[in-house]
Order: sequence, then C-alpha cells, then structure tokens
Amino acid sequence: MNTVVLEPDRAVAAAAAAAREWAEAAPSARARALEAVADALQAERTELVALADTETHLGTTRLNGELTRTAFQLRLFAEQVLAGEFLDVRIDRPDPQWPTGPRPELRRYRTALGPVLVFAASNFPFAFSVAGGDTASAWAAGCPVVVKAHPGHPGLSRRTAEIIQKAMAQAGAPDGVFGLIEGQQAGIDALRHPALRAAAFTGSERGGLALARIAADRPEPIPFYGELGSVNPVVVTPAAAGARGAELAEGYVGSLTLGAGQFCTNPGLLFAPAGDGLVDTIVRLLREVPSAPMLGDWIAEAYVDGARRLARLPGTRTLVWPDDEASASPRLLTLDLAAFAADPKAAAEECFGPLGLVVTYERLEEVAAVVASLPGQLTTSLHGEPHEGGDLADLTAALAGRSGRVLWNEWPTGVSVTHAMQHGGPFPATTAPATTSVGTAAIERFLLPVAYQSWPQRLLPPPLRDDNPWGVPQRINE
Amino acid sequence: MNTVVLEPDRAVAAAAAAAREWAEAAPSARARALEAVADALQAERTELVALADTETHLGTTRLNGELTRTAFQLRLFAEQVLAGEFLDVRIDRPDPQWPTGPRPELRRYRTALGPVLVFAASNFPFAFSVAGGDTASAWAAGCPVVVKAHPGHPGLSRRTAEIIQKAMAQAGAPDGVFGLIEGQQAGIDALRHPALRAAAFTGSERGGLALARIAADRPEPIPFYGELGSVNPVVVTPAAAGARGAELAEGYVGSLTLGAGQFCTNPGLLFAPAGDGLVDTIVRLLREVPSAPMLGDWIAEAYVDGARRLARLPGTRTLVWPDDEASASPRLLTLDLAAFAADPKAAAEECFGPLGLVVTYERLEEVAAVVASLPGQLTTSLHGEPHEGGDLADLTAALAGRSGRVLWNEWPTGVSVTHAMQHGGPFPATTAPATTSVGTAAIERFLLPVAYQSWPQRLLPPPLRDDNPWGVPQRINE
Repeated sequence: MNTVVLEPDRAVAAAAAAAREWAEAAPSARARALEAVADALQAERTELVALADTETHLGTTRLNGELTRTAFQLRLFAEQVLAGEFLDVRIDRPDPQWPTGPRPELRRYRTALGPVLVFAASNFPFAFSVAGGDTASAWAAGCPVVVKAHPGHPGLSRRTAEIIQKAMAQAGAPDGVFGLIEGQQAGIDALRHPALRAAAFTGSERGGLALARIAADRPEPIPFYGELGSVNPVVVTPAAAGARGAELAEGYVGSLTLGAGQFCTNPGLLFAPAGDGLVDTIVRLLREVPSAPMLGDWIAEAYVDGARRLARLPGTRTLVWPDDEASASPRLLTLDLAAFAADPKAAAEECFGPLGLVVTYERLEEVAAVVASLPGQLTTSLHGEPHEGGDLADLTAALAGRSGRVLWNEWPTGVSVTHAMQHGGPFPATTAPATTSVGTAAIERFLLPVAYQSWPQRLLPPPLRDDNPWGVPQRINE
Repeated sequence: MNTVVLEPDRAVAAAAAAAREWAEAAPSARARALEAVADALQAERTELVALADTETHLGTTRLNGELTRTAFQLRLFAEQVLAGEFLDVRIDRPDPQWPTGPRPELRRYRTALGPVLVFAASNFPFAFSVAGGDTASAWAAGCPVVVKAHPGHPGLSRRTAEIIQKAMAQAGAPDGVFGLIEGQQAGIDALRHPALRAAAFTGSERGGLALARIAADRPEPIPFYGELGSVNPVVVTPAAAGARGAELAEGYVGSLTLGAGQFCTNPGLLFAPAGDGLVDTIVRLLREVPSAPMLGDWIAEAYVDGARRLARLPGTRTLVWPDDEASASPRLLTLDLAAFAADPKAAAEECFGPLGLVVTYERLEEVAAVVASLPGQLTTSLHGEPHEGGDLADLTAALAGRSGRVLWNEWPTGVSVTHAMQHGGPFPATTAPATTSVGTAAIERFLLPVAYQSWPQRLLPPPLRDDNPWGVPQRINE
C-alpha cells in the first residue's frame, strides 16, 4: 500500500485529533491552507491532467477545465472563510423587558461539525474527488476530511493526496486535516467510526442508499449527504418545438452526449410534443454521434444493462439503437405519456451514459401532473417561447417541486460554482434535499450551531467576542 | 370522535391540497393568519388555562405564562415572515468573465418544504403542543401542519384546534393549513403518508427513535426533527463551591424541582467537588421540597422506575430517597467520577422528573474528558468564579462539544424564545443536531432551496423577481 494511503481507523482518529485545532484556526490561517492546496494543484497541472486522462479517458481539454474549477472552488471557499458569514453569528443582549420574561445574554454561531468522510466520484476526477467541492467546503467549515478514493482513478487520487499533504503541512495545518483511504470496506469502516460526524457522497443510487443506511444505523447516527443521480427531465412546449425545433434538437443531443453522457445532470428524460419533427431531428443527429470511451468497463456494462432494462418497459420503442448490443454508443427510446405515467418510477430510473428517453405528449396541460409524480431530480428544464405565460405556471410549480434547480431554455449539463447555485433535489436525487453540494451554500452541511449563555468573554470563541478579533459579521439584537 | 379531529389520511391529504396556496401566500397574509391565531388564543385565555390545569396539574401561574409565550412565538414568527430573511434570496447576475466559464443568471431561495406533522409534547400543553413552536415555525415557513395531539391533554388539544381553525378561516388561510389527529396509530399512519414532507417531535428517546426509524424507512425518507431528552450536565468548580456553596445549592434545587422536574432542560446531572459542603446543603434543601403532582400517572411511574434503575448502578448511593418507594417526591443519588466514567451512557440516561445524580470529582482537570464521553445534551452549564480562566478552556470546549447551549453561572431550565437561542444538541438529545426547535432559527427546519436558472420574470416566485413585490432582502451578486 502506498504510504499516502491510511487505514480507515487511523485516518479518522487522526482527523478527530486535528478537529479542535482546525475548527479554532483563525480564518486567515484556514484560508491560506485552502489557497495553498489550490496553488499546489495548479503547479502540477501538466502531470495531474495527463494522469487523469490516462485513468478516465475524459480528454485533456475537459480535464484542464475541471482542474481550473477545482482550484477555483478552493479559493472561493477560502473567501467564504475570510468573510465569515457562514458562522451566522447572532448576539442577543440581555433584555429585562422581553415579553416572556427577562432575556439572558445569548451568543450563537455555527461551528465545525467534526471529521467528515468524502466518497469521491468516478466522473469528476478533480472537482468531485480528492480535492473537490465536498472536501473544500468541509475544510472551509473547519472540518478535517478523510477521502475514500474512487477506484476509477487510483493513481490520480494518490498523487493528489500527496500534493495536498505537502501543501497543508507547509501552510501549517494540523496533521490529520486530510487523509486518504482506499477500498469499499475501508469506506464502510470509516463511516462506522464513532468519531466521524458526517459523510458526503456522489455516485449511484444503489451505493449511496446502502451507505446512507450505514450512517443512519450507527449508535450515533450522522448526516449523510448523498447525491445519488437524476434523469433531469426536460419539457419542450409545442410552441418552442415549432419555432426552433432544429436548434432544440441540436442542443439536446449535445447535452445528452457531452462527456459520453456521464454527468449527474445529463438530460435523460425529454417530454416532447407528439407528431412534431423535433424527435425525428434528434434521431438523425444522435445517429451521427460516435461512441465515446466511458470511464471504465464497469460503467459501460452498467450503461448497456440499464438501456436494455428501459427498452423492455411496456410501450417503449427504440429510435436509436446500435447493431452491436454491447456498444456504449448513444441510444434513444420513446414511449407516450400514458405509458410513461403507468410507472414513472421505473421509466425515470437513471441509466448513466448517453441514453435518452423521449416521452411524447398530446396536450401540454397533461404534463404537469406527470412531472409532479416523478421521483426527485437534481434539475428540470423547460423550453418555451417568450409569449407563453400563465399557462406555464402549473408546469413551473411542478418542475420546481421535483428538483433543486429549474432551467429555462438552457440545458442542465454544466453546473456553475456560484453563490446562488443549488445542486441538490428531493429524494432520491439526494438524501438531504435541504442542502447543496455545489456553490458556496455547500459549506452549510458541515456546521453545527451552539449558543453560549452569559459566558465570560475570555472563554468565548473569537467570533462571539465583543472585540471580534476575526472581524466576522455579528448580528446584534439589542 | 370529536368533529375537529381528522383521520390521518384525510388530514395529510388536506394539508397537501393546501400546500401550494399556503407556500405562495404573500407574507402579509401569512403573518396575519399567525397573528389571528395568537389573538384568538389570548382571547380564550381563562378557559384554556383552566382546561390545561385540569388536565396537566401544572398550575395557573405557569400555564398563563406558557400561553403568553405561545402567543408571543406566533407573533415573533409572523415578524420573521414579514422580514423575509429566512428565504435567503441569492441572485447571481450573468457573468461572462466568471473564472470557470460564463456564469448563467441564477436565483435561489428557500421555499416551503410541504406538509409537516407535529407530535405534541406532554409537558408544555401550549408552547410545545397544538399551537406551539413547531407549528408556528412550520406555518411561518409556509408549510401546512397536522398535529398529533398528546393524550395527556386531549380536551385542551381539541379546544385549541377549534380556536385555530376558526381563526385561520377568518384570516383567509386555506383549508388544510391545520389539522388535528389523535392516537398513536394515527400518528404513525400520518408519518407514513407519501405527501408528508417532515415531522417534528418532542418527547422520550424511546418514542422518538421509533418514529425516527419510521421516517427513515419510508420509500421517500423525510427529515425527522426529534427533541428526545437530556440530563443537562452542570459542572461546579471547587472555587465556585467554596465561594458560594449555599447559593449554588439553592439554585440547583430550585432548577431540579421546578415544575416537578418535568423539563427537557432539567439539570439531572451535577459534577461537584468531593468532600465539599455543597452536596450536604443540596441534600438538606431537597429534603424540604414537597412532592408535586406530575403530569399523569404514567409519568410518575416512569419516574420511579427510572430512579430505581439509576440507584442500582454500581457505586451509587442514595442521598435523598422517600420512605414511600412509589412517591414522586424529589430524589438524589451520588457516585464518584470513576464509577460514573465506567458507563457514562447508562448513568446519563434521562429520568424525567425531579431526580438528581451528583457525580463527585477530586480534580477538576479530570472532568473535561468525562464530559467529552457523555451522550449529546440539550444544555450544559458551568459554575465558576471570575478569576478562573485558561484552565477552564478545555472544559468549555468539552461542554460546547456535547450540547447545543452552554450556560455560565445560570441554570438550564427556562428557554428564552429569541434570535440567538439554540434548543438542540448532539444525538441523542436530538435527531437533527444542526437545527433548533426554539427561537427564530427553528423556521430553517421547514425550508427547501430551489434555484431558477435564466427563468422568465413573469414565471418567477415573487421573492426572486427584480420588482421584488414582497420587499424581501435580496442578496445580489453582480
């Protein structure tokens, strides 16, 4: 075993030992450490991207962009640490006139939750992996992180871990603020470790639900932030299909096949008007898209199995289907709204890869109720025309009610890392719909509120003191 | 069955039918409805307090205060609705220069989660019951509420429900925004209803964990906000015991026996210096406290059983114990730190009622490690002297690490309803340590974030529009 890889017990114990020092670290120190990791990753860009491409076949253009995003995320969270708003400091001054009796002095903030376990994803070897968004947001909250490496890119995971360890040590962060473990059993053992306080996961529904169960069945249950997958339904109105069918078909095929369809925001489910030329155009364009290498053989096999399962659903017809049954090339299936509505859960099951299921409808008014019956989704999208208005209100409510992000006239692949991003959604898209795994709000997953009542200034955490040495925002209720 | 009591399926279905209208209601309308309920409860104060006293034996002084608090909570949450900060509106303007690629327009807020089930508590017939804090905060978030009445005060629950229904109807709130159900099986059936989106509970660890399991085992799991109990450890330093032993003994006995000890913040566990006069004084004072009627026979029986269980722990001695074994009068047990540390989980199990367990220690430096080994608590308290400083830093960290609220030189009974209050804590004090069930932050339990990407103004929810018709705070990232 590589020296950068730890046994799970040792990794969590080291994280627990580092927890208080890291949680109490001044914002400047914590931000500096995150920036040091970002700098170090970018300094080794050429080596890391080459290694990632060897292991994932995602191509150097995409991987260079992903590394840029990963470094950006670390710096954006460093900014959050310095801004200190996530601490949500609230100070109630004593108030003898408070309507329910004298109000004591109360000072509340959100502090670090403790050691966090991150299960790395296969499809984002940088941005949802060892130094990815979960790790960056947990560190920013003040939590040490143990990463369970994804077996799809083991060499990259170890090399990234080495770079992190060196950068963290040089920045003065405590030992144990980062650890790498490998293997399914190691992940389970770490998840069961009594000192662990939360876990974050990006991957399959099956794997995620099994781990969520382990987290819930611990003697002390812990939050499990699982991002499990989604078919990201897209609705095209008749007006939009009529006005710009060719453009929509092109956009859809591009989004469906981007990165061999290996995005959690891949638009696997399309509601399109029946009898329109839109579907014919999609079929024509999709047949021209060549087969692209997938992340690994196990992904390609699961893709083919999933495609066959969907093709067997009652009422389903194949529109694009390879002669070679085992090919990972794009596929397209279709069925009508009534057939889909007979078992929306089965028909909306994710098939990870470039597979599209087109549901044709006769009347747009019937689509909202079917959307409302869908399992929870990461995203939903609506393609309409500027003149369409009130008649889309119910559809808007249905789409927003079943997903964490709704898009108008855009495609769901591509998740910008911003303040207002929501990358989450109702179960089973995620196991924690009130949270996001992308964007600055992701830090909220790793915080725990605590209130100090009439506590002496000299023993208060710095953000709660009157002299406010960290200079964080304090909301004071006089 | 009384006409105000619904079957669980009907109650949740009615809540689901009302959910969208209530979630989309303008802040002024929603606030007016909460205020109408507060007004109506206060208008019937004499009748309600008399009814509550008949059913709970808590006394009219306490119950009048609790009704005042309940009305205040409703008005405080009405203020939150009008202020709109809980919506956490974030707007990212499009930014073509965004470091990871062009940033789309994103508008994120937190909307209502959907129908909420509230399990009422026995010991707060107003403030944690039908129109209590859970109900008020869920309504404020925009969620319809179904309350499962506590069998300890059925007449009061029904009368309160009638008052709510009339006030809500007069305020123009949709039918289904409130419903009352009765009985254990009805609570379970409602918890399993597919349209339910969250549940809140205040009660025993055993009952709460059973319900939490049901919530987790649903086809679509939902959050279960359980406040399960706590022994609220108090540490007295040798310096404090020496300087003001008599005052501390008096304060402790008062807090321990307030309301017959029937508070979730009751200080059941006291760490006191060995060989000090403090414990002797506590014994003397506690023997003078008469037995007070408990909420019901089932509570008194559980109290006596729990006291006997604790008295059987190895190393335990009885200091105050009634001649009548079945009496609900105050009791005091003691054991030393080593005996306590042998099984902190068993010794820290809650015995609901006026029972104190005094753990005597020789050296204060040994207490922090034992505190760190405790199960999660709602509160912890430290009584020290002004000159004590750095040597209490480890103890402060241990106390704050195991509870949602830490108190300095005060007693934990009495939970003020404020902005900075935290009434929560690590498992098993609660099943959701990142949340609070008291104070304005309680609203956060019932919200769900959703982001709108490039969505037309005319179809956006009002708080996300540029014209901001609700006048809510919008954080705009240019």
